[in-house]
Amino acid sequence: MIKVTIWNENRHEQKSQEVRDVYPQGIHGAIASFLKEEEFQVKIATLDEEANGLTDEVLNNTDVLLWWGHIAHEEVSDEIVDKVQQRVLEGMGLIVLHSGHFSKIFKKLMGTSCDLKWREANEKERLWIVDPAHPIAEGLGEYIEIEREEMYGEHFDIPAPDELVMVSWFEGGEVFRSGCTYHRGNGKIFYFRPGHETYPTYYHQGVQQVIKNAINWAKPTNLPRPIYGNAKPLEKISVKN
Amino acid sequence: MIKVTIWNENRHEQKSQEVRDVYPQGIHGAIASFLKEEEFQVKIATLDEEANGLTDEVLNNTDVLLWWGHIAHEEVSDEIVDKVQQRVLEGMGLIVLHSGHFSKIFKKLMGTSCDLKWREANEKERLWIVDPAHPIAEGLGEYIEIEREEMYGEHFDIPAPDELVMVSWFEGGEVFRSGCTYHRGNGKIFYFRPGHETYPTYYHQGVQQVIKNAINWAKPTNLPRPIYGNAKPLEKISVKN
Amino acid sequence: MIKVTIWNENRHEQKSQEVRDVYPQGIHGAIASFLKEEEFQVKIATLDEEANGLTDEVLNNTDVLLWWGHIAHEEVSDEIVDKVQQRVLEGMGLIVLHSGHFSKIFKKLMGTSCDLKWREANEKERLWIVDPAHPIAEGLGEYIEIEREEMYGEHFDIPAPDELVMVSWFEGGEVFRSGCTYHRGNGKIFYFRPGHETYPTYYHQGVQQVIKNAINWAKPTNLPRPIYGNAKPLEKISVKN
Amino acid sequence: MIKVTIWNENRHEQKSQEVRDVYPQGIHGAIASFLKEEEFQVKIATLDEEANGLTDEVLNNTDVLLWWGHIAHEEVSDEIVDKVQQRVLEGMGLIVLHSGHFSKIFKKLMGTSCDLKWREANEKERLWIVDPAHPIAEGLGEYIEIEREEMYGEHFDIPAPDELVMVSWFEGGEVFRSGCTYHRGNGKIFYFRPGHETYPTYYHQGVQQVIKNAINWAKPTNLPRPIYGNAKPLEKISVKN
Repeated sequence: MIKVTIWNENRHEQKSQEVRDVYPQGIHGAIASFLKEEEFQVKIATLDEEANGLTDEVLNNTDVLLWWGHIAHEEVSDEIVDKVQQRVLEGMGLIVLHSGHFSKIFKKLMGTSCDLKWREANEKERLWIVDPAHPIAEGLGEYIEIEREEMYGEHFDIPAPDELVMVSWFEGGEVFRSGCTYHRGNGKIFYFRPGHETYPTYYHQGVQQVIKNAINWAKPTNLPRPIYGNAKPLEKISVKN
Repeated sequence: MIKVTIWNENRHEQKSQEVRDVYPQGIHGAIASFLKEEEFQVKIATLDEEANGLTDEVLNNTDVLLWWGHIAHEEVSDEIVDKVQQRVLEGMGLIVLHSGHFSKIFKKLMGTSCDLKWREANEKERLWIVDPAHPIAEGLGEYIEIEREEMYGEHFDIPAPDELVMVSWFEGGEVFRSGCTYHRGNGKIFYFRPGHETYPTYYHQGVQQVIKNAINWAKPTNLPRPIYGNAKPLEKISVKN
Repeated sequence: MIKVTIWNENRHEQKSQEVRDVYPQGIHGAIASFLKEEEFQVKIATLDEEANGLTDEVLNNTDVLLWWGHIAHEEVSDEIVDKVQQRVLEGMGLIVLHSGHFSKIFKKLMGTSCDLKWREANEKERLWIVDPAHPIAEGLGEYIEIEREEMYGEHFDIPAPDELVMVSWFEGGEVFRSGCTYHRGNGKIFYFRPGHETYPTYYHQGVQQVIKNAINWAKPTNLPRPIYGNAKPLEKISVKN
Repeated sequence: MIKVTIWNENRHEQKSQEVRDVYPQGIHGAIASFLKEEEFQVKIATLDEEANGLTDEVLNNTDVLLWWGHIAHEEVSDEIVDKVQQRVLEGMGLIVLHSGHFSKIFKKLMGTSCDLKWREANEKERLWIVDPAHPIAEGLGEYIEIEREEMYGEHFDIPAPDELVMVSWFEGGEVFRSGCTYHRGNGKIFYFRPGHETYPTYYHQGVQQVIKNAINWAKPTNLPRPIYGNAKPLEKISVKN
């Protein structure tokens, strides 16, 4: 059973009635709700908890970590970010949602600015599947349509994804690489674009399906972390003068 | 339960006592033997059967096809090759083993010569895992060591793999991209280098583990083949003069 | 000086006054016209010439081949297609334009159906640069806008490009991977989406810039084709029993 | 004319007679020496200079930065590292040599540990070209052979390279991804493995050829940095309730 931890900044929910109206149990609660129907063991962690919710015990007992953050990226401590990075390199899966593109952990793992264009204009998004062989597309059709979302537009300043699974079309004229996979060390990372706090995106069945698929895809591979450092030869080396 | 069909040319086994000594049930028999221990539903198909063993019924009931061929690539009919390609594009997984690099189906799916350097000299091969996050590396260590194998050396004339999982070191001084993944249409392809007919490679636990992992990785994604051709607009197009 | 051969099917131009009105010198003529301003040595080849315009002499004296075809793909002889593939593997660059996606040579080099969605509806296309580091984006801005074009939509059934340079937005609601690079053997391939025969696309400065950049990018690397086949060991192999 | 800055830590040269014997003008001097024969404008920068040798003026006048460091990675200031990263994202090329794999700037741009296996044992390295279409392979043969080098072995903890150009074979039994390209923002990065301070590697003609090729490949693309942040719609967005 895959051990999933949903990390949510959980600040919009405290500050805004509009957000609470959409997500009365928080964004984390909405995500937990549809994950619990599956064979996942789900835990919640939020910014204002001890160690930003990510104690060693939590991290060491997480197979796949989901990350939603927006207005408080800077409040996540650098020490915790380093630990999360270390856990990814050791094999923990990481699924970065929407505005998490600007989180410390995503920027650290990508090595780029992770910047993009954005606009809040109640516009339509259509996520086209461009890699129908990918397990993250399991159970979907040709595209996912979301009636109203925030726009994210190219250029998205990320490394070219190892695999590009989805590309978004926006009503206002932009496109976006919306479903991107990466391997980093022993770990797997998936970035998934939709999920603005004022829209009911996490109740959308297609969005839920992608997140479930991504968890299954990102679960750790059973393989020890490689041995680094000074290494004895495995074969005889000829003597040279 | 994944439906696996092991396709073997099965000619060396008929012609050579040396090969029969290593693989008394054929290469296909040796592979079937360790796959049957797992949750796979295993069938055998060989070149000299009707439709080269790959009738529509067989192909339509195969989730993942394994392919071993060497001296009779040209005897596989073009019609069958076209059908296998079609099935891969529809989602069937394909695992191409060793000398299958020169099979019609692999060359057709790659679009290149698939040529390489080779040598039979009883030499040591060490397959290093270069992508420890990949599910095909599940349960392995840092490398797989095979005491005696045929050498395949670079340049291997293939498209750059979508993911490079293993690189081989050979005693005689060459390297080789030994574990390569590709998506083609809705289907997934894995090329795995070892498996010369005169060596007991398919009894090697590490080799067996890779093949089992590759089957799990290559199983079809549940997603309809996309719709191609003329398409009505999804959005209103402004009239232009 | 890069030797460029522009191959054009040149059939629409013969059959249709509408196309002749847009391209009085043929599509090949329009492309030749803006290439001649640059440091390129430009030749024309068309389907109805001897050897489909691609004699050994022409092919052996081509650094980069541009390919425009549509209604007569099937009339290109298989022998010529094999020779073009061989020349690409030897290092010749190939730039496939628009409806060339369904040409025999592109399908052969890709190994997939190369199918897609399409629509002729006078709609707007906006090609976003998603890889601003790529030399094919040299001298461009954030996107290229084409007022009226044929739509090509995902899923585009190609291998994941080695590098994805551009993604198109279409007014009618689709997206498309519009600028795709591939290495095949010693050769480089670029697929570039726009260029329907009834639109003045090849007079568009941004489109012209991309084609010039792509030629510079696709020129042959000075490197012999690797040596394939049986190879003597470079290092001593220990004797085993 | 490409403006190249060679950054060298220049500490081994000060501390060790053995290194001075191999590189009397420093590693930077040896590299500058063969670059000056080409159409490059070459400058030197070293750790102990003001701003670690990398003032804004130097960085703003650098098209391609070469980086050699080993024992003093930690002495490079974080502020300078941030500026170099920023310049790469703006388009400056970066060529990271040998032990630079553990530099702050490379780790920051990769997002991984960049760890590896290593051994100093006077052993033979053979770098096989696995992508003969790549311009970084220009003018080479099938491989580069270096009689004595330090060994670097897999697993090399880097993101899968955008393009893998070379793979090393080592006498002691290891392999290594030795020539790796990346795009990050508007900039291009090349990691090149050889170059231990006690071996005359930078006098090797093949090694010199690769570095020259890499500079030509990594030069900035003429394209403005994309515009990020809030964006007005390019198309009319329908009103929704």
